[in-house]
Amino acid sequence: MRIVALAGGIGGARFLRGLRQVEPGAEVTAVVNTGDDITLHGLRVCPDLDTVMYTLGGGISAERGWGREDETFVVKEELAAYGVGPAWFGLGDRDLATHLVRTQMLDAGYPLSQVTTALCDRWQPGVRLLPMTDDRVETHVVADVPARDGRPAGRQALHFQEWWIRYGAKLPAERIVGVEAEKSTPAPGVLEAIAEADVVLLPPSNPVVSIGTILAIPGIREALRSARAPVVGVSPIIGGAPVRGMADACLAAVGVEVSAEAVGRHYGARRGPDGTGSEAADGLLDAWLVDCRDEGATVPGVEVVSRDLLMPDLPSAAALAGAALEVARALR
Amino acid sequence: MRIVALAGGIGGARFLRGLRQVEPGAEVTAVVNTGDDITLHGLRVCPDLDTVMYTLGGGISAERGWGREDETFVVKEELAAYGVGPAWFGLGDRDLATHLVRTQMLDAGYPLSQVTTALCDRWQPGVRLLPMTDDRVETHVVADVPARDGRPAGRQALHFQEWWIRYGAKLPAERIVGVEAEKSTPAPGVLEAIAEADVVLLPPSNPVVSIGTILAIPGIREALRSARAPVVGVSPIIGGAPVRGMADACLAAVGVEVSAEAVGRHYGARRGPDGTGSEAADGLLDAWLVDCRDEGATVPGVEVVSRDLLMPDLPSAAALAGAALEVARALR
Repeated sequence: MRIVALAGGIGGARFLRGLRQVEPGAEVTAVVNTGDDITLHGLRVCPDLDTVMYTLGGGISAERGWGREDETFVVKEELAAYGVGPAWFGLGDRDLATHLVRTQMLDAGYPLSQVTTALCDRWQPGVRLLPMTDDRVETHVVADVPARDGRPAGRQALHFQEWWIRYGAKLPAERIVGVEAEKSTPAPGVLEAIAEADVVLLPPSNPVVSIGTILAIPGIREALRSARAPVVGVSPIIGGAPVRGMADACLAAVGVEVSAEAVGRHYGARRGPDGTGSEAADGLLDAWLVDCRDEGATVPGVEVVSRDLLMPDLPSAAALAGAALEVARALR
Repeated sequence: MRIVALAGGIGGARFLRGLRQVEPGAEVTAVVNTGDDITLHGLRVCPDLDTVMYTLGGGISAERGWGREDETFVVKEELAAYGVGPAWFGLGDRDLATHLVRTQMLDAGYPLSQVTTALCDRWQPGVRLLPMTDDRVETHVVADVPARDGRPAGRQALHFQEWWIRYGAKLPAERIVGVEAEKSTPAPGVLEAIAEADVVLLPPSNPVVSIGTILAIPGIREALRSARAPVVGVSPIIGGAPVRGMADACLAAVGVEVSAEAVGRHYGARRGPDGTGSEAADGLLDAWLVDCRDEGATVPGVEVVSRDLLMPDLPSAAALAGAALEVARALR
């Protein structure tokens, strides 16, 4: 069975680990958000790709959910002693080696997709990791920013990481933009994997800055809409709140209510009421998994199924992935 | 008093620390060899500049004499786990932060001399550190190299660091070349500092790959020869052997015997027998300090003075620097 999953960081990574466990024989392709990528100290950092790679490769910090287990922060300390920031980014020493290898390969001319394959030689994640694009697309957030680093206060576009980490997503976002997304193309293999998939999954990643950014790459939304496979999404919102992260702050920026139903409606139905693609439908979903406490949510044209969506550990993540596959099979 | 000292790594750094101690009011400019510089993992590493900066700034590893005290090697371990070498270079985590800051500034267009000044903002070495040049000059060693890293054996030009560290300078060097030295120019301030100096010192650094490389930058040798200040050198060879490092292997490559006398003659006299610059003299020295056990060494046209040259600690380094200044004062 060929499965494609779009993925952000922690939520996507844990879902994928469950998926690999419940369906070990499947060929899984993860199309990973790279809009969070940032260049720090001259190093190219790809937080979501690394979170997925470390999680599936057994190197993730269990406690934090991002970065490496047994991490040290000596280099960051030293950079601070030089007065070199940013202080708000948690750049670990082990993690830094990944960025060094990646940056050197990128500088040598390899595209990010090939660099990712090379890094995965070490980590053996057991799924194929593809960046959404080999082009540089960076998510920026327009917000009223207080005075900082000698710059005056005012409406500014911040790199997503600064908004997310430094300001804890607490500055109300007027807009969230995938800079250069409209000029980018999907990484090699992305559209083919979607076209050839037996199942397409949208894990409970952030619908705006993870899944939404992937969908902003020209061609990916269309590929999902025309895929022969059913598309099954899993709500990242349970009982009116994000399970983790600060998806509520992102949803506010796109005018979507923080509820499983509203996010399902935001993704929308792939087929019209007659069961075929029609003008009435321009969405992505065939089915939408919501948590038991959100039972009764409806998304026109989409089969809404309620299950336990919490995945505090591997068995529950595997059960959730299994439930998504079961729903997908019933749709085929 | 304005003092200029040419310097390599450990020997030069310890001598400079002694000089600062014995003559705290002096304006000292250290012109530092950058021929050992190497790009590793995309980072620009300047071993001699860093050894001098860390030694004078209180950050040096007392045990090793290079690199940082309390150093860790987590990044190096991780790079090895990715299969990324070289394994023979001891890249510490603390040290790496220096290379990150330097590389980012170089990439932003700052010349190495300005980058060095910026790094010294943190370390406050108490002397002005100038790279010999802002241009990229790299010392390479031509030698018969055994098969390695999938490459066949044969006569090859190795980066100095690989020859020095990986092969422990044990591959007989046919030639030692400062690649691109002939096209380089001295860093801003180098020639002016030499012209305005009251004393010029050649500390007991490697006469071939440290001092010799500095002298290969067009204009520096001429500046020393025409300086109004006396030029006093300190022998790095004691009793027929280098005090530290592997200067013997380097001297062999330039056909100079491993003795204090031979190295003094290799540098040569700045003045002819009549006490003025003449065709008979094309060297650099006015005086040459040799160790007590090398008493009796002669260098035509040069005042040879014997003193205790070992500097196992700061007081002995200060005494040696004081002796060199005393000899210089007697010459003025």
